[in-house]
Amino acid sequence: MAKQPNILFIMADQLRADYLGCTGHPSIKTPTIDALAASGVNFTKAYTQAPVCGPSRMSFYTGRYAFSHGATYNNVPLKVSEQSMGDYLRPLGYRVGLVGKTHMKKDVEGMQRLGVDPESSRGVLLSECGFEPYERDDGLHPDQTVSPDLAYNEYLREQGFAGDNPWHEWANSAEGEDGETLSGWYMRNCDRAARVPEEHSETAYTTNRAMDFIRESADQPWCLHLSYIKPHWPYIAPAPYHDMYTAADVIPANATEQEKENLHPVIEAFMGHDESVNFSREEVRERVIPAYMGLITQLDDHLARLIAYLKEIGQYDNTVIVMTADHGDYLGDHWLGEKELFHEASARIPMIVHDPRPQADATRGQLDERLVEAIDLVPTFVEWAGGQVPDHILEGRSLLSLIQGDRVESWREYAVSEADYAWRKARFALELEPDQTRAIMITDGRWKYVHYEHFRPQLFDLQSDPQEQNDLGQDSACKEQRERLEQALYDWYRMRKTRTTISNATVANMTGKAHARGYLFGLW
Amino acid sequence: MAKQPNILFIMADQLRADYLGCTGHPSIKTPTIDALAASGVNFTKAYTQAPVCGPSRMSFYTGRYAFSHGATYNNVPLKVSEQSMGDYLRPLGYRVGLVGKTHMKKDVEGMQRLGVDPESSRGVLLSECGFEPYERDDGLHPDQTVSPDLAYNEYLREQGFAGDNPWHEWANSAEGEDGETLSGWYMRNCDRAARVPEEHSETAYTTNRAMDFIRESADQPWCLHLSYIKPHWPYIAPAPYHDMYTAADVIPANATEQEKENLHPVIEAFMGHDESVNFSREEVRERVIPAYMGLITQLDDHLARLIAYLKEIGQYDNTVIVMTADHGDYLGDHWLGEKELFHEASARIPMIVHDPRPQADATRGQLDERLVEAIDLVPTFVEWAGGQVPDHILEGRSLLSLIQGDRVESWREYAVSEADYAWRKARFALELEPDQTRAIMITDGRWKYVHYEHFRPQLFDLQSDPQEQNDLGQDSACKEQRERLEQALYDWYRMRKTRTTISNATVANMTGKAHARGYLFGLW
Repeated sequence: MAKQPNILFIMADQLRADYLGCTGHPSIKTPTIDALAASGVNFTKAYTQAPVCGPSRMSFYTGRYAFSHGATYNNVPLKVSEQSMGDYLRPLGYRVGLVGKTHMKKDVEGMQRLGVDPESSRGVLLSECGFEPYERDDGLHPDQTVSPDLAYNEYLREQGFAGDNPWHEWANSAEGEDGETLSGWYMRNCDRAARVPEEHSETAYTTNRAMDFIRESADQPWCLHLSYIKPHWPYIAPAPYHDMYTAADVIPANATEQEKENLHPVIEAFMGHDESVNFSREEVRERVIPAYMGLITQLDDHLARLIAYLKEIGQYDNTVIVMTADHGDYLGDHWLGEKELFHEASARIPMIVHDPRPQADATRGQLDERLVEAIDLVPTFVEWAGGQVPDHILEGRSLLSLIQGDRVESWREYAVSEADYAWRKARFALELEPDQTRAIMITDGRWKYVHYEHFRPQLFDLQSDPQEQNDLGQDSACKEQRERLEQALYDWYRMRKTRTTISNATVANMTGKAHARGYLFGLW
Repeated sequence: MAKQPNILFIMADQLRADYLGCTGHPSIKTPTIDALAASGVNFTKAYTQAPVCGPSRMSFYTGRYAFSHGATYNNVPLKVSEQSMGDYLRPLGYRVGLVGKTHMKKDVEGMQRLGVDPESSRGVLLSECGFEPYERDDGLHPDQTVSPDLAYNEYLREQGFAGDNPWHEWANSAEGEDGETLSGWYMRNCDRAARVPEEHSETAYTTNRAMDFIRESADQPWCLHLSYIKPHWPYIAPAPYHDMYTAADVIPANATEQEKENLHPVIEAFMGHDESVNFSREEVRERVIPAYMGLITQLDDHLARLIAYLKEIGQYDNTVIVMTADHGDYLGDHWLGEKELFHEASARIPMIVHDPRPQADATRGQLDERLVEAIDLVPTFVEWAGGQVPDHILEGRSLLSLIQGDRVESWREYAVSEADYAWRKARFALELEPDQTRAIMITDGRWKYVHYEHFRPQLFDLQSDPQEQNDLGQDSACKEQRERLEQALYDWYRMRKTRTTISNATVANMTGKAHARGYLFGLW
């Protein structure tokens, strides 16, 4: 077997695909990520399987669509029967660790029913989506719910940043003119520097912990999920990143008055959410987006530090690096804030894969426009590790052939992304029950079709309308496209992998063998 | 709370819906079941969710479609995360026992991964689909694979029927003219009496064990799954049932030369199986069907004994009885043997519900033509037991309102049944991979539509063509019906319940509450 590479699986939270230098942002500084792209592959049509943290990540980690793994929204427990990249890589000899966020909600009832102690080593893995929780930090710690044991808070206190919740008071708050604490939860404060010095910020700390993990894992191949909370809200950056960008760097919102005509009911309901109302104001965008950009550049700078470290300890040449995000951020585009729906700002994600080894030399610096999905990473990692892909469970497709520049006879024709907005106020506005709030997007890379339960569909032509300003969901000229994509969705549903307890190879080997096992039915 | 009824959930294996007196068979004697129907409800359009033992039963027990529970064929382990009627009824105070067959295959890998000892009390329940295995006997025991501990074999030996596998040698074999043993596995021997005396046959023994369970359960409400192996093959009945019926009782095969024109590829492939070739011969039908009928009458006689026992111990008036089957048997209809496909002979099942209590008085003796599915039993049982139906998991619908004669505003419009024939030789004939062998049937009670992956569909109009002789799958006059049913299937797929770890009520209670929990996103 070839030497197994280390796998550095980096995720930024809520990082829009187009907020990197290498993906076309006109002024953001992301030299480290750009360099990875310049000597790796930059997948320009990668889609998250769900544009919201929890279900997106469960798809990333399980290699399965949200419909299949069932954790359709934040805080929906992932059933104990779902396996993750940790389950697949550990038997191949890997140490599989987590530093940062997963948004995993443990299936307490499932564990209770099966008698698994959540505190046991097995229970911990089940609770952490198969990762060794070297440093679990979901990065969102309201004062009401902050854990007294949050490691980052202990760290901050050790550095002299005291309080019940220094995460909030220091790392995610600013200081007012009179020394008062101004919470970063409120976007009006986002032009100020976080109170914490940059070197003790959560992004810095997370990077340090990644280095600790790597240092301690010298003896075996490792897969590290380095999962930054930023640039996710609270949108507040430490100096000097807080004022590195200004209103001049803010791209005009991709939002037009035309869009508001004949609004889709679901879009309209989401436009009523606080984040949409606020991000529709220029004042908000001009205060938040520079901070958002600063957080991205800060993250990039720490990646530089991490890569330098890998080089220093001689691991860089045998470490494959994936840089991606769980979903994007509307930032006022389409009069919306946050994510959850399927416009490019929300559902498309950055996906840069850097394999330093010779087998990837053929593709260095390539932009690859083929459709990639979050679920492709698990089979890619399994192949990197030299394992067999369990194709009766995994729904993604290994990217290895693309990364190695192999001739690929046929690639996927469609990418799919799902939403379940039962938890959002939009459900009330739309008068839906909690099981009626499903929406699903399918795209062939040019046409993007969104099926909403109980409402009409949407259709966009990304070729003639890359800004998604013109909803063709009711355009009679596009009936054929809609029908084609609806049929593709139907085909997709029928092929979901739910028979996960027996492999295709085992089944193949059993075909026609009942008589041989003594079950002599149908014989005279 | 009203007194909880006992639940006697009787299943016959491979019992065609039309092989009972009360469902229209011209000569079979089933007075006990007929009497249940005469004072209960006889559902005349009940469909199994999969016309083969394993997946059908997993649907019966979990209340979920095969697509959802994933155990799509015999011996596909049911994932440990799937819950069964035992899991729902036990917390409501019930003892939930099994006497007979489940065809449950335990998820050994799943249990290993979760550290569940299959021998522990929890592991046993997981291995037995949530039933207390009071007497597990799947009833199919080839000499190659028979368990040395099979309780029925021990019983037979105690009665003096010696041998390595008396199940085969005595209960499922006959004796030839020269005293030689003639295996019941071979249909040519099915006109002979089984060597075992009737009182020690498997049907008698199973009934005895049911009485033992009931006797031991006097202290609490119980749910007993009494699951007979017969009239499933080996088709061999003990005297006097072996010659109670003759060739004169054999209904002509519902098979025409017309059917063989423009055969559907999947049907054609199944016609190539041994059981189809053999059941297409009159000699075989005339030898097997009388035995099949004898086994049914024998079963009915033992139900009489069981009901008399319930009356004797004073439990009859508080015991609801369900009589059903996991699927039918082609018996040569459509030139086919066995089951697995979707003609009425295979996919339609008997479903008789007898509730002795006053609340069911309004419906006694009714034939109910509304569409019923196997998955309806779990929610029905939960309601009988006074529990709340977990409607984020269960996909069936409680029959209580139908049984009580309540005004029902709207009932289901479609029933669905699924197949996965990867294990059958037909897969080779059709040149399919193990994940390409899916088929699914949907019916509105009149029109029956079958979608086959990789092949054209079938359509039957049960009103004008109750014999299903005229496949309208390519009839241009029926395009609209096909499209309507295909759309209904698509709607069905989209609504599968995969988000099973959080209830709808919990979700409803969380809608719009993120800010209240301190997650102050989107605020200025």
